[in-house]
Amino acid sequence: MSFTLWFMGRPASGKSTLAKGVETRLRERGFNIENLDGDKLRKNLHPDLGFSREDRATNNRRTAFICKLLNQNGISVVNAMITPFRDSQREVRDIIEPESEFILIYVKRSLEEAKRRDPKGLYADAEAGKIDKFTGINHPFQEPHNPDIIVDTESSPEAKAVRYVLESLDEKELLNEQPSTEYRFDITKHEENRIKDRLISLGYLDDSSKSE
Amino acid sequence: MSFTLWFMGRPASGKSTLAKGVETRLRERGFNIENLDGDKLRKNLHPDLGFSREDRATNNRRTAFICKLLNQNGISVVNAMITPFRDSQREVRDIIEPESEFILIYVKRSLEEAKRRDPKGLYADAEAGKIDKFTGINHPFQEPHNPDIIVDTESSPEAKAVRYVLESLDEKELLNEQPSTEYRFDITKHEENRIKDRLISLGYLDDSSKSE
Repeated sequence: MSFTLWFMGRPASGKSTLAKGVETRLRERGFNIENLDGDKLRKNLHPDLGFSREDRATNNRRTAFICKLLNQNGISVVNAMITPFRDSQREVRDIIEPESEFILIYVKRSLEEAKRRDPKGLYADAEAGKIDKFTGINHPFQEPHNPDIIVDTESSPEAKAVRYVLESLDEKELLNEQPSTEYRFDITKHEENRIKDRLISLGYLDDSSKSE
Repeated sequence: MSFTLWFMGRPASGKSTLAKGVETRLRERGFNIENLDGDKLRKNLHPDLGFSREDRATNNRRTAFICKLLNQNGISVVNAMITPFRDSQREVRDIIEPESEFILIYVKRSLEEAKRRDPKGLYADAEAGKIDKFTGINHPFQEPHNPDIIVDTESSPEAKAVRYVLESLDEKELLNEQPSTEYRFDITKHEENRIKDRLISLGYLDDSSKSE
């Protein structure tokens, strides 16, 4: 079953970096993965949306719908998005479950530490009154009630956080279901049938697996 | 390379039926296909959009972005959408090409014949003034300048139209690139390796195809 890993957390909590790290590891393990990029979605899908409570909810809802669409087609998704409201944290889960697996990953870093890091200088701008509705400064951030995974990025180095997420996913047996038995041969139909004939004659496969 | 088949045409031109028929044949031939459903997208992705010229353009643009996202992940798409404006017919192509293959299929049926069929009674409602901005009655429909395929559904039976589209796609050699050699066995890793060992010992495969 395909899955959506939804990384939520404050601005500058490290969620995009973490999502990217997890994506890389999953690709190495053979998963089909799309990393939905929030900025790309905003630009292409809904340049009209702003950062009001309602627009954030719409952004979350639309993104969840796209996650679901990809999951239904066998593509798993990692997505990093602040998702500051509990209503939306619940709603995106309801959109994706139960047809696909939804894992809410809370990337936890204190407001103080996020402000201290502030790689894009956004907290400084928000505190100077240059950004309206900035999460944690002049707009709410609601911690999730029941995240599936909590990653502490207060002090952990990135690599450790990535490992922790992967171990947690393994514990949930989420990574077992990958069709490890799917592979591609660069062979012609004729060669494929020759191999299948041989496997059938040896009793490894039965006739029904032969394609015309 | 994955592709998007974009079926455009008047209301009641038969584009959704045709798209569904082509989808079915492509699935039978082993393609990974998503049939993007216009109504589903309107409901889930943008319930806010109406039928003004601008909203139709936005609907087309967003849908094209989702086509591209699926194509990038190896999922081909069929999509049926009126796409009444030439600007949008060009724009959706520009979004999807050149990374993926975009085929604009003009499902051609005259206004008179579409009105005669009118399976949902929408033309009748529009002519009675009950629907605003209905394509062909009180909103424009611009025939495409350079569609890749034109299917005449004026008099052709559905099965013939489906065949015609598939033949046209074959002529464009669009359906050749499908990895016909990809298949899934429902076997364990252990069994897979047992088969591979046997194939290697028989000289059908070499060592490099063995996974750990």
